[in-house]
Amino acid sequence: MELRCKNLLSIGDLVPTEITHILDTAASMKEVSERDIKKVPTLRGKTVINLFFEPSTRTRTSFEIAGKRLSADVVNISASSSSVVKGETLRDTGENLQAMHPDLIVVRHSCAGAPKMLADVLPSAIINAGDGAHEHPTQALLDAFTMRERKGSLAGLKVAIIGDITHSRVARSNIFLLNMMGAQVCVSGPQTMVPRFIESLGVTFIPSIIDAVRDVDVIMMLRIQLERQSQSLFPTIREYSRFFGLNRTVLSHARPDVLVMHPGPVNRGIEMSADVMDGPKSIILEQVTNGVAVRMALMYLLIGK
Amino acid sequence: MELRCKNLLSIGDLVPTEITHILDTAASMKEVSERDIKKVPTLRGKTVINLFFEPSTRTRTSFEIAGKRLSADVVNISASSSSVVKGETLRDTGENLQAMHPDLIVVRHSCAGAPKMLADVLPSAIINAGDGAHEHPTQALLDAFTMRERKGSLAGLKVAIIGDITHSRVARSNIFLLNMMGAQVCVSGPQTMVPRFIESLGVTFIPSIIDAVRDVDVIMMLRIQLERQSQSLFPTIREYSRFFGLNRTVLSHARPDVLVMHPGPVNRGIEMSADVMDGPKSIILEQVTNGVAVRMALMYLLIGK
Amino acid sequence: MELRCKNLLSIGDLVPTEITHILDTAASMKEVSERDIKKVPTLRGKTVINLFFEPSTRTRTSFEIAGKRLSADVVNISASSSSVVKGETLRDTGENLQAMHPDLIVVRHSCAGAPKMLADVLPSAIINAGDGAHEHPTQALLDAFTMRERKGSLAGLKVAIIGDITHSRVARSNIFLLNMMGAQVCVSGPQTMVPRFIESLGVTFIPSIIDAVRDVDVIMMLRIQLERQSQSLFPTIREYSRFFGLNRTVLSHARPDVLVMHPGPVNRGIEMSADVMDGPKSIILEQVTNGVAVRMALMYLLIGK
Repeated sequence: MELRCKNLLSIGDLVPTEITHILDTAASMKEVSERDIKKVPTLRGKTVINLFFEPSTRTRTSFEIAGKRLSADVVNISASSSSVVKGETLRDTGENLQAMHPDLIVVRHSCAGAPKMLADVLPSAIINAGDGAHEHPTQALLDAFTMRERKGSLAGLKVAIIGDITHSRVARSNIFLLNMMGAQVCVSGPQTMVPRFIESLGVTFIPSIIDAVRDVDVIMMLRIQLERQSQSLFPTIREYSRFFGLNRTVLSHARPDVLVMHPGPVNRGIEMSADVMDGPKSIILEQVTNGVAVRMALMYLLIGK
Repeated sequence: MELRCKNLLSIGDLVPTEITHILDTAASMKEVSERDIKKVPTLRGKTVINLFFEPSTRTRTSFEIAGKRLSADVVNISASSSSVVKGETLRDTGENLQAMHPDLIVVRHSCAGAPKMLADVLPSAIINAGDGAHEHPTQALLDAFTMRERKGSLAGLKVAIIGDITHSRVARSNIFLLNMMGAQVCVSGPQTMVPRFIESLGVTFIPSIIDAVRDVDVIMMLRIQLERQSQSLFPTIREYSRFFGLNRTVLSHARPDVLVMHPGPVNRGIEMSADVMDGPKSIILEQVTNGVAVRMALMYLLIGK
Repeated sequence: MELRCKNLLSIGDLVPTEITHILDTAASMKEVSERDIKKVPTLRGKTVINLFFEPSTRTRTSFEIAGKRLSADVVNISASSSSVVKGETLRDTGENLQAMHPDLIVVRHSCAGAPKMLADVLPSAIINAGDGAHEHPTQALLDAFTMRERKGSLAGLKVAIIGDITHSRVARSNIFLLNMMGAQVCVSGPQTMVPRFIESLGVTFIPSIIDAVRDVDVIMMLRIQLERQSQSLFPTIREYSRFFGLNRTVLSHARPDVLVMHPGPVNRGIEMSADVMDGPKSIILEQVTNGVAVRMALMYLLIGK
């Protein structure tokens, strides 16, 4: 089975059978990273460019390792050292890279739509590695992989997403994917951080975190973007943490088999207490492991023929 | 046929038969980047260091991809993260890198002569990837490759180079190469940006861009270095663009089969209008594609035995 | 023979037979870098992460080249582009990287103990590439390799270490290693830069550099960290250089077969005069060459089975 699209820009590019196929492929890719020799020749002679206009150790490293374990040639470009300082447009940057015949360009950008703009004009495959507050589809896929691996199926799963819903590309991509796969999503967070017509996305809004976590299979906490936060969306970090942080007390209201997830990096003690983060319900590091597998699967499916 | 020199520091290092040999070799290298598996084992076990004291996405990426497609191990060093911040001299930086036994060091530096200084003391091969206002020989070679591919031969070709001739290493390298290969070069640009005795380089100076482009095969526009420009060389960007920018009106005075080139990145709407840049006469992106091929050829000829 | 420890955090992790084994292994690794094809498949399919919280061209490049010549996949992470800017703890950064299944993490950090902290919680191998004023064990091993190669044996060797002993991780690691291997170490430097109870480390303190160098086999000069120096430890650089710099006059008091070493990068004309640095007694560049060999040996011994 092949993906219908040459790119992965948003979860909406995919249909449920494709999502299932990506997750199945990721399962066999995960096994590669557990071997003694973590390398297969699948993408030998392919060129992958990591084009990151926003810094991100985790995501860039995950894609770089994924590409290298598939034997691709991986080239990293970060905005700070790029032609961007010389005033080149994004499209020109893209077309110039394209002229060097990459097979895949992985793009992270602070502007929603930047990867799509590139995908519209470039023949190479494009993966959106996060664009503004729009989408982060590989995160949603790795989250789905992790939930499915732990819970057996996505259909019927109940998931609470908690935090700054409005500005979270992770929340958006997860909502789209989980809805598509038959899971039920509720969101919680300060009213100032939840879009007014959130129900139109097919989720329910539950103002209290305790009510939100009560009957779910998975609690997905979002990162408070302290480095971007103008601070006007909530009075103080302490207050945010008190009302919307996940701690032992809140967790005591959840089901005993609930799983705690976070896209990372976690602000310890803010959106999540240290004991919960390091506790037995947390599968945050599994998400990271699965991120490499899911990205290997996508690279293989998009450019490995 | 082997190159007589272990380095490529300036076009003057080469004789016409060597230039032809490099371009012929690049033609077969270009084919590698068009394959499904874009990789040959030619430089397996060779170490290539990209030593960039000035940022340049395009050129660094071009060399990195060229090296990786030849299976070399490529190591990137940028000035910002380098020992330079610790006050080491260029020569010491070079000798320390040499001690790790690289086969080739690709050097970009803001000072004219920096690559030559390294070449004089280091046994490894050195490629000048641009040194101050001195030379950028791989750019001239990729430009020559592109012109030859399109026009069949360099001999007899008429080329107009337009812009800041005085500060352009691209112009200098192109003038040297084109003269050597039997092409005719004229230059145009503000009087403040053209060296007084430019004719001594074997080119003619034509004050008006319209007169300069009238009867040529190739128009090579130069980049206005806005980020370096003290602005004192011309009154305003608008005025520069009006008198020396390449737009549809200027182009209407050129021959119908004229080719438009630019070393990139282009300041859209300043030295070149967007419609010309994206129009059918523009072969700017072919230059980028050919850059990888020419650099592969040079790496092979210098260190591939 | 296998190393008993999965990490190299400090010289104290090693026993003399292990040090000898590392140096013997490095001798055969050195030969790889002298071949025409500088690559062996030893670490194919292994993932090495260079995690550098302090910039260092030399050390990062040395580890990167060592890894690539052993066919490992090498991923560079520098603090400036890392999650550190997002406020993640070091432990969380480490655990997240671990989740991507690296085989080895090479860590440089400005805080003493950072690599040990990571080693305590992560199953992957850790190499300390310099931690604050604590240790830099691979430097001591490459220094030992160089001395042994030149002098035949470490036992009985007399070594003078001169400069800012207090803040030097290089001095500490060398003192531990040389003591363990039966060499005799004396130190010299301004009183403000030598710890009060330095003799407890098994070395002698000689206030005058001329007395210190008089009867030794090796003079190891330390780098004055001008970029970190608060300048309060000595009145002026000129005065430091006059009293503790190594120049021709000082060297005339040493034995004719004395060797001059320095961990680099050298401040020419400050801790060492240019003629000494470039003179026949200096083996500074051999140290750099041997650094690649010693790091290849360590990578092989720690993760190559």
